[in-house]
Amino acid sequence: MTATTLLRPSRSEELRIRSRLAASAAARDGGVLSNARLAEWLEDRRRAQAQRVERVPFAELAGWGFDEETGDLRHRSGRFFTVHGLRVRSDFGPVAEWDQPIIDQPEIGILGIALRDFDGVPHLLMQAKSEPGNVNGVQLSPTVQATRSNYTRVHGGSAVPYLDCFRRPRPGSVVADVLQSEQGSWFLRKRNRNMIVEVGPEVEAGEDFAWLTLGQVNALLGADDTVNMDARTVLSCLPDWRQDAGGADRALHTDTEVRSWITRRRAEHEVVAAPVGLARLRGWHRDERAVSHERGQHFSVVAVDVASGRREVPAWSQPLLQPHGVGLAALFVRRVDGVPHALLRARAEAGFATVAELGPTVQCTPENYAHLPEEVRPPYLAEALAWREKAVYDVVQSEEGGRFLHARSHYAVIEVEDALPLVSDEFQWVSRPQIEDLLRYSHHLNVQARTLVAALRTLS
Amino acid sequence: MTATTLLRPSRSEELRIRSRLAASAAARDGGVLSNARLAEWLEDRRRAQAQRVERVPFAELAGWGFDEETGDLRHRSGRFFTVHGLRVRSDFGPVAEWDQPIIDQPEIGILGIALRDFDGVPHLLMQAKSEPGNVNGVQLSPTVQATRSNYTRVHGGSAVPYLDCFRRPRPGSVVADVLQSEQGSWFLRKRNRNMIVEVGPEVEAGEDFAWLTLGQVNALLGADDTVNMDARTVLSCLPDWRQDAGGADRALHTDTEVRSWITRRRAEHEVVAAPVGLARLRGWHRDERAVSHERGQHFSVVAVDVASGRREVPAWSQPLLQPHGVGLAALFVRRVDGVPHALLRARAEAGFATVAELGPTVQCTPENYAHLPEEVRPPYLAEALAWREKAVYDVVQSEEGGRFLHARSHYAVIEVEDALPLVSDEFQWVSRPQIEDLLRYSHHLNVQARTLVAALRTLS
Repeated sequence: MTATTLLRPSRSEELRIRSRLAASAAARDGGVLSNARLAEWLEDRRRAQAQRVERVPFAELAGWGFDEETGDLRHRSGRFFTVHGLRVRSDFGPVAEWDQPIIDQPEIGILGIALRDFDGVPHLLMQAKSEPGNVNGVQLSPTVQATRSNYTRVHGGSAVPYLDCFRRPRPGSVVADVLQSEQGSWFLRKRNRNMIVEVGPEVEAGEDFAWLTLGQVNALLGADDTVNMDARTVLSCLPDWRQDAGGADRALHTDTEVRSWITRRRAEHEVVAAPVGLARLRGWHRDERAVSHERGQHFSVVAVDVASGRREVPAWSQPLLQPHGVGLAALFVRRVDGVPHALLRARAEAGFATVAELGPTVQCTPENYAHLPEEVRPPYLAEALAWREKAVYDVVQSEEGGRFLHARSHYAVIEVEDALPLVSDEFQWVSRPQIEDLLRYSHHLNVQARTLVAALRTLS
Repeated sequence: MTATTLLRPSRSEELRIRSRLAASAAARDGGVLSNARLAEWLEDRRRAQAQRVERVPFAELAGWGFDEETGDLRHRSGRFFTVHGLRVRSDFGPVAEWDQPIIDQPEIGILGIALRDFDGVPHLLMQAKSEPGNVNGVQLSPTVQATRSNYTRVHGGSAVPYLDCFRRPRPGSVVADVLQSEQGSWFLRKRNRNMIVEVGPEVEAGEDFAWLTLGQVNALLGADDTVNMDARTVLSCLPDWRQDAGGADRALHTDTEVRSWITRRRAEHEVVAAPVGLARLRGWHRDERAVSHERGQHFSVVAVDVASGRREVPAWSQPLLQPHGVGLAALFVRRVDGVPHALLRARAEAGFATVAELGPTVQCTPENYAHLPEEVRPPYLAEALAWREKAVYDVVQSEEGGRFLHARSHYAVIEVEDALPLVSDEFQWVSRPQIEDLLRYSHHLNVQARTLVAALRTLS
């Protein structure tokens, strides 16, 4: 209020960044890298980072092995991650108890995107990054995508470029910084720090990096397998630049009711997950090349050998989790009195730290249910499949290629006309500003829902 | 906006409940139970619920025993809770590794206070409840204080009064509903659902219950050992009725910066806690009557036998955790350009689900540090002890008497004049509206900080 006040006004700083992001989203072509050159650059990076990825027997995994006692799959050094078993008891869904392998990687990494103004328009520093599990090698990634071991360099290794932008941001430069979970069915309590930070003109793009407008990134989110999972989750944590005049305060449920619904779903249901040796899992078997479910469903744990086209990157081998079938993540949306709402489902996944998070309306692998009777299929799956042809967004996206082999899902946003009857307390309509609020705090929207939030924001 | 809108306005509903709570806080005497009668009623309830609590050897614990293999202390039925061991590795504080016993009670219970209007003023339904660990038997408790086993009655037992007010609240009646942690040094990932719900005139006070104004409850928060921990944490989750005109948006740090600080403290530090049998703890020993630390510090696990004065309540015995020494929880507060701020410390406690939560400026048992050199004492402890004489709030409060034996702390609010130099990134000044925001979402303020928030709100 006074000229000498020490105080900072949160709301006006937030409005300022929103309007700057809106300008960046409106810039459909880039001032730094034109769309034509962007396509060339991506192709060029694909060639430069070409990898040869080959399935191999576990015996050929260098440095990895099955623990003699537990059967857990781990690296000899204790680094990277472990695949162990989980015995899960839940009163949340139709299946009360099951065993499954799970990836245990307890470290919190950084996924960060740097923002820099060019001619007054914020640009995002995106990275062309290859991962062995990607169907197409290189995808567009955040500026930094580093595990804690990476960035503290406890195991040696080269410095992570741009890391200091995120570890030592300038005062007032952090746009978003929040811990978010990743696939709760595949990761045990995995979470990463999702950051967006503004940087100055001293930060320049290296050869694997490009400054893109939000409009350019949004366009790429409309293409199959192009923007990787880590980039999508960080993008979902940006302040929502599509400001509605009015409407922000009005929704089908008050903010208190939405929070109460989440609390209730977490408190009234139990998911008890106990670690159990990989060798002791019921319903799973291991052969020379895979740990698989006896019905061939869900996923397998496999091994790959990776040879890089780059001379400075040595070959390596690692386990990957290979899902069976292409997933479907569908979000039903509708406007109520002009206010956009999405139908979210409170989901319990075994690896969640907090019992339940909000996922898309439908999230499953449809072929797992193809032969099953209607009543055991996920609610709204039939509607989602029937209505996909009129989806306003329908793109195949890849999940994290450093841990998953060819893990892909159809991400669909489907506008529904009328109020659907809600089949249970697991479902709730949540407004666009409420979703943005929930994304400021950890562990409310799961990683699939966050991809769909990023997708939603690309639609006018 | 239109007469037929389906939409609910969050902000105006919130303003309405705030102004109604302000009226209740202004009512220093009760319309339903006058202060004079309230004191009598509490005395009367103390007599009616008198308990005889006696320390006994573990061998006399009915139904409880030490597991032959692990040494864990558990009930034969698997009910209630378990005391097991924890091996903790942390890079957060000065001690890198330690062992400790911990109470494991994974269920999420309900702590709920019902609100009902009398002559247009909301009254809180408070319960006079005895617990074996209380120094004075009965304290003022929430309307409902129930574990999940209690309220789902999986083990039989009588119905919990008023439970349905919280399990099946009327639409639009929930004022607050959030999961909050409890003592992270004593409980493993314990959390309870903190609820405030409005009820109608059909809800009446039973003999152990009384309708009190917020002004009456606030006055009782100024008396030693009177309002129990469970009530204090629920009260801290009420919307803050002391609205400042203006100032809400201005603070020393933006909301984004405060959230980023919390994320950073959680991401950059590691607390790895692995369960280990109680018998295998290093530095702890067990005799017939206690599991204690070899230096006599921290706490002991002991056993008590409880005989109730009420004919319908049978005698029982149970373990309790008995802290050594009276704690100190001190909060430094100051106004910056008129906006109230509090100095919070990001604390890692072994039992937290999320690495770190925000605690008071100082939280420790001072006598543990009396003989130690200055540099290993907690930051600001010396200042807190020196400045306590000018504290604006200084009251002894009890921790949960159902699990802790005579666990008491001095809770002090101390106004500091100037900007203190902050000793590390563990400390940050957070504004009053920011604290309220953090309390709407789980696991940001620890239970000691929540008591101090409830205390702060009793000061004009």
